[in-house]
Amino acid sequence: MIVPAIGVTAGDPAGVGPEVTVRTLARASALPPAAYVLFADPRVIKAEEERLGLSLESRGWRPDIRDEAGVFLMAVPGPAAPAAPGRVTAENGEASFRAFEAAVTEARAGRLEAVVTAPISKAAWALAGHPFRGHTEYLARLYPGAVMAFWSDRLKVALLSHHRPLREAVAAVRGDTLLEFFRSLHRSLAKVPGGPFRLLTAGLNPHAGEDGLLGREETDEIRPAIESAASEGIPVTGPFPPDTVFMKALGRSDIVVVALYHDQGLIPFKLEAFASGVNVTLGLPFVRTSPDHGTGFDISGLGIADAGSMEKAVRLAAAFSATGS
Amino acid sequence: MIVPAIGVTAGDPAGVGPEVTVRTLARASALPPAAYVLFADPRVIKAEEERLGLSLESRGWRPDIRDEAGVFLMAVPGPAAPAAPGRVTAENGEASFRAFEAAVTEARAGRLEAVVTAPISKAAWALAGHPFRGHTEYLARLYPGAVMAFWSDRLKVALLSHHRPLREAVAAVRGDTLLEFFRSLHRSLAKVPGGPFRLLTAGLNPHAGEDGLLGREETDEIRPAIESAASEGIPVTGPFPPDTVFMKALGRSDIVVVALYHDQGLIPFKLEAFASGVNVTLGLPFVRTSPDHGTGFDISGLGIADAGSMEKAVRLAAAFSATGS
Repeated sequence: MIVPAIGVTAGDPAGVGPEVTVRTLARASALPPAAYVLFADPRVIKAEEERLGLSLESRGWRPDIRDEAGVFLMAVPGPAAPAAPGRVTAENGEASFRAFEAAVTEARAGRLEAVVTAPISKAAWALAGHPFRGHTEYLARLYPGAVMAFWSDRLKVALLSHHRPLREAVAAVRGDTLLEFFRSLHRSLAKVPGGPFRLLTAGLNPHAGEDGLLGREETDEIRPAIESAASEGIPVTGPFPPDTVFMKALGRSDIVVVALYHDQGLIPFKLEAFASGVNVTLGLPFVRTSPDHGTGFDISGLGIADAGSMEKAVRLAAAFSATGS
Repeated sequence: MIVPAIGVTAGDPAGVGPEVTVRTLARASALPPAAYVLFADPRVIKAEEERLGLSLESRGWRPDIRDEAGVFLMAVPGPAAPAAPGRVTAENGEASFRAFEAAVTEARAGRLEAVVTAPISKAAWALAGHPFRGHTEYLARLYPGAVMAFWSDRLKVALLSHHRPLREAVAAVRGDTLLEFFRSLHRSLAKVPGGPFRLLTAGLNPHAGEDGLLGREETDEIRPAIESAASEGIPVTGPFPPDTVFMKALGRSDIVVVALYHDQGLIPFKLEAFASGVNVTLGLPFVRTSPDHGTGFDISGLGIADAGSMEKAVRLAAAFSATGS
């Protein structure tokens, strides 16, 4: 049986990334059949296995072997000294960046169907001279059509913009941008299992502008973009009042809400799907997922990190890969 | 026993207001002891009682009698013809406006401790020549320190701004405005039972601006306002990332989240407290509450309206009045 190859990166060595990664992959036999290829420093992984009393039973990876499920290790050298839990260092930033870059390189070359990324530290990346705000921004530079989405059984949200000041995000709500976004999102979703998906677009202003009384963006930018997209056959409706559109989508597996700025989508998503949420980057030639939490520097090294979201991210990557997306 | 006097308005005659009002007040004996003074056209109320098979057993109201609990009627003449359910008319707008104005007049004169308002139609008010966006905007013109808040056992939110375009709401996040807002809110909350309350302030930008990387308002406006307020003894903290601050407040009865724009507060509030939420206007010399739903023009006249939120609004008004706020 041919199995998908799924790259996994363990994130910042000083955070909970290595812990949730090892916890998840140690149960690989209970995960969907795939070659889970861990890009990491073998010393970091070995130390984590010993600390947690778990074993990945990993082997070396050879991309040409496509029919063996299990855990494989791609060695990406990290810092010489072990990472002090919770500390931001350039060495750790360089290590997590290199592992991610190595996984992306394999995915771009078509040797991985998906990449799952444990949390990195932006600050550590910055110290190491890699000025990306995160994995998504790195990918967005390679693929301008990249879409940041949040995925759970209960709610699915795609963000028109993410890490930018609200003032700029408001100014960026333009018809042409939105139409391109609908196209890219729709194209990506066509390959995602569970579809076809309908898109519900949130308005920008209170009550979706109330016919222009509370703002013009709905009339001037959003509605025309929705109408153009719909005329191209994209199943998109709206704009809906932002404070009720998420209720329409709750528990509806075939609906994705288009949120126009970071917190419009993340406030409801975190409330409704905090523990079970997965971050997905769509609009790439491969799938990228990650858990919906940060480095957890305050609890790293304590052995108490919850691997639930990482496991969901791995499972979602496997599900998306199974259809060849 | 002296009981509080609580004004109640039935809202637009063509909406569900009269129905939820009659349903709620028909069970006055099960509500906290108070004089519930209904400002309405007696014909509208009588028709609703007959339609629902309920009786308010109302008497005429005399403000000097302060020791009789029950339902009282203050006649405010409405349209000559009965309202057609779900229709927006100038006559209905005029009727709901006059009833509200009459109740506010009594409250301003100190003859009512609170006013509970069933939903009106902005469009009907506009047709009748009353260009207020709603009850709150009318009250805000009388009392510039008025604060729109949303109240439930599960979550409490106060809004820095409500019915304005997001672009304007963002520009209105200024240190001096925010400091005045903290003062007004804190002063009002001092009279509210269940306190003392702590204020958690949401940031404006993603991740609360991340030290200026994602926006300057937190550094330049919000944090200085919080520090000034705190130095005056107001228990306020923040700014917190908008997508996690509401989680901190869930189920914590002594926390009020300060949201900086309409949907920042209403998206989480409606998700977490849709059925049980009550709209409260603070910063007035009396209390004003209302149910957290609209006129329900699509279901008015069918006898299926849920009076739960109206009853909560009445109970909250009674609770707030009991301490003499």
